[in-house]
Amino acid sequence: MSAKVIDGKAIAKKVRSEVAVAVAKMKEEHDYVPGLATVLVGDNTASTTYVRNKHKACQEAGIRSIGREIPADISQDDLLAIVRELNDDPTVDGILVQLPLPKHIDDEVILGAIDLAKDVDGFHPLNIGRLAMKGRDPQFIPCTPYGCMRLLKEMDVDLNGAEAVVLGRSNIVGLPMGMLLQKANATVTICHSRTKDMVEHLKRADVVIAAVGITEMVTGDMLKPGAVVIDVGINRKDDPSKKRGYRLVGDVDYDSCAEVAGAITPVPGGVGPMTIAMLVQNTLEAAEHKLSQS
Amino acid sequence: MSAKVIDGKAIAKKVRSEVAVAVAKMKEEHDYVPGLATVLVGDNTASTTYVRNKHKACQEAGIRSIGREIPADISQDDLLAIVRELNDDPTVDGILVQLPLPKHIDDEVILGAIDLAKDVDGFHPLNIGRLAMKGRDPQFIPCTPYGCMRLLKEMDVDLNGAEAVVLGRSNIVGLPMGMLLQKANATVTICHSRTKDMVEHLKRADVVIAAVGITEMVTGDMLKPGAVVIDVGINRKDDPSKKRGYRLVGDVDYDSCAEVAGAITPVPGGVGPMTIAMLVQNTLEAAEHKLSQS
Repeated sequence: MSAKVIDGKAIAKKVRSEVAVAVAKMKEEHDYVPGLATVLVGDNTASTTYVRNKHKACQEAGIRSIGREIPADISQDDLLAIVRELNDDPTVDGILVQLPLPKHIDDEVILGAIDLAKDVDGFHPLNIGRLAMKGRDPQFIPCTPYGCMRLLKEMDVDLNGAEAVVLGRSNIVGLPMGMLLQKANATVTICHSRTKDMVEHLKRADVVIAAVGITEMVTGDMLKPGAVVIDVGINRKDDPSKKRGYRLVGDVDYDSCAEVAGAITPVPGGVGPMTIAMLVQNTLEAAEHKLSQS
Repeated sequence: MSAKVIDGKAIAKKVRSEVAVAVAKMKEEHDYVPGLATVLVGDNTASTTYVRNKHKACQEAGIRSIGREIPADISQDDLLAIVRELNDDPTVDGILVQLPLPKHIDDEVILGAIDLAKDVDGFHPLNIGRLAMKGRDPQFIPCTPYGCMRLLKEMDVDLNGAEAVVLGRSNIVGLPMGMLLQKANATVTICHSRTKDMVEHLKRADVVIAAVGITEMVTGDMLKPGAVVIDVGINRKDDPSKKRGYRLVGDVDYDSCAEVAGAITPVPGGVGPMTIAMLVQNTLEAAEHKLSQS
């Protein structure tokens, strides 16, 4: 058996094109273009690359992006003032504060200060509560889980009554992912570092979401034949054949899992491109919501 | 094998006594007595009984209780005004709006209007979000799940790495229960009406929380020997030998499960008394929090 490859790159492109069409329509009908503000504190190389990619994706979709680059020694109060200024700016629909922040700044305070209507990352506890609860809807779905759900949808995966196993319980992936799968009527188990027998759970899973950050932890022999495998991990693995000395791999051992799974995301080119696509989507949704309220 | 009986009545009494001691101390040290306001709309017999029992439990713990009884034809705006009045009343620490509300009133609007610091039921989405998220703490833990956790604690159940299966995904029991068990490092699966094979999950569960409202659905043959079984259900079962024609039973078939389980709650006398005890506890916590802020 050889799994279908879930082409995150192509699906992300599709999402971005849909957003571009909607943005063009909004411009025509409302003479308005959505705007995303990014806040980058310090000069962490990875963060700088992430933020640059987010701006590029916005640009391609016709969304304005506003980049605030701030020295690493900014005080928490001054950073708060910047967030509040962006909250008040009517041309900003989404605010993204790139993590990690310098150690002297409390993430929770900064993220909690973002206007809920502009919190396109969807990490506010009120948003997470609404995401969890039956009969409630979040303002935004956190980008990575939103991307995973879109991949499942594009692959026509029937989640109703499906056995879903999420590996990892982080606030930004595992936890909201479990909530979304449960709302889609899957039976969800979240495994984590204290789980005694992860393999027992994997063996019965129709859908596996791996988001633990452990290199190639899931191998083909752990899977139920035909399972749909979504690999959120991005880990560096030594590879002397590469110029930079490593290559990127997921939490899933791709080769052995592809033999057993029904469908699987590659790393890179699976979940990664979806996260940025859904950020662009959320920025559009923020602007749509604003226009519908005015 | 015969299961230990988890005596909710005795444990609830213990909780209420602890609260009474803390209330007496608060009165002595701060010259302050916590207050709970209940809002009862209409004259539903069950609701009237529940509210009366809550007042009685407050009284026993030395907590003031304020009962607002309101005609069923009150408008939503007028009910909102009452909630806001209680929000502003400095002698009120907890506000409990008894559900169900009449059909012309939107529960969500009324419950959402309760000051988060007085929401002793803990149903606000912001509270649920904080309950779910790693590194965050809720203002209040919803009373029934809080009571279940206390029962597990009193029975010295080790939740670290335990396989926990929650039957039911309601906003007031199943959902927050799953969050609490996960925070206690259990591996949690939530089963619900769409779950394909509930028994497969029950068979491996070290801890079972049944909260589906289906009479005696869980039978002994479905359990792992030695499992701890917490029965949240309260259902009426025909019983001609009783004057009222029925008796109260849980979601668990007590007799067959008691043969297999390691410990089990009876119905009545298990979770039921804990819910009210934890409401009294939450009212105390609300007052303690207020005093610590002033």
